Amino acid sequence: MAGTHIDFWFSMGSTYSYLSVMRLREVEQSTGLSFRWRPFHLLLILQEMNHVPFADKPAKMRYMWRDLGRRAAMYGIPTALPAPYPAKQSIMANLVATVGMNEGWGADFVRAAYRRWLQRGEETGSEPNLSSSLRDIGQDPDRVLHIANADETSDLLSAETRAARQLGIFGSPTFSVGPELFWGDDRLADAISWCRHGQVRRG
Amino acid sequence: MAGTHIDFWFSMGSTYSYLSVMRLREVEQSTGLSFRWRPFHLLLILQEMNHVPFADKPAKMRYMWRDLGRRAAMYGIPTALPAPYPAKQSIMANLVATVGMNEGWGADFVRAAYRRWLQRGEETGSEPNLSSSLRDIGQDPDRVLHIANADETSDLLSAETRAARQLGIFGSPTFSVGPELFWGDDRLADAISWCRHGQVRRG
Repeated sequence: MAGTHIDFWFSMGSTYSYLSVMRLREVEQSTGLSFRWRPFHLLLILQEMNHVPFADKPAKMRYMWRDLGRRAAMYGIPTALPAPYPAKQSIMANLVATVGMNEGWGADFVRAAYRRWLQRGEETGSEPNLSSSLRDIGQDPDRVLHIANADETSDLLSAETRAARQLGIFGSPTFSVGPELFWGDDRLADAISWCRHGQVRRG
Repeated sequence: MAGTHIDFWFSMGSTYSYLSVMRLREVEQSTGLSFRWRPFHLLLILQEMNHVPFADKPAKMRYMWRDLGRRAAMYGIPTALPAPYPAKQSIMANLVATVGMNEGWGADFVRAAYRRWLQRGEETGSEPNLSSSLRDIGQDPDRVLHIANADETSDLLSAETRAARQLGIFGSPTFSVGPELFWGDDRLADAISWCRHGQVRRG
């Protein structure tokens, strides 16, 4: 079943999501497809699954940094790794991203926060990353953080997290075309193929 | 650091390894690179990590079957999924593969056992898969299973599992070029690029 757009589900505490975050603008231009950015709070779903992706698995975590660095280099995306991980306040970054998606500057904030985290070592979701990333894109931190901390924003993020869980999402980034899920930046090409042809074809 | 060959680390109970198992012959021909097939017992490493990849994570397991099926179709590899999982006696398949690598028919056995498991639903490592796969490739099951059950074979498999652990391997398939690891069939192109150029370049 082909589609007209791709949903891009992501959580700000996810390292690998950086690759997609930095690539999507170019991918939209080269493919003509549109992506809907949908922040959700993956940590809640992982806790329900009783799953810790990397932090308690040293070999897997070492590999993740190495693999992320190699693939970022392949795409020409700068990194300074390893970066602080896991991000203790990733929920704050997800809340700010939620506000930003509503107000139209969400993708810019997400890119700014990832740059500060994975290029400059400023933990995402905490200060100074939060306020500095907002200032980077011309937003007033006081105003935005006030909205981010309001119940309405929490409700919006919870609703998106429920929607993600209902689709069967368990990781970030995930691309969805209707009910069809593609987990990982390395499945972006598969998602694009599905959206165009209703099947995964070789690149 | 470029290399001259790629080590292909795999465990017979791994579903995704099927893709690499079925692709490698063609990849060797098209790239001119050689792959050294190295069975190891991943389950032991996963147990040490206290990690269960899919069996206790329903959403992730559903996705795994779907993703595996889509990518197998992309490569023109037949499947009938889901197949019995997890394989309760994967160690027996790993022991037989170890014997086969020594005697020169290992890759043929591995392909036969995967075909029976993921195309015909015969659980890998158990009967009838074990003996039928051996017969498929012209090997006498009595003779081979006797060697597979000997201490020498167990020692060989343990030594390879130790070598895998020491390299930092935590999943199957993993490709290694010297100390550089590439986890997953979806990193085969990265491993080839590393082997040729000492870096990951875009396909």
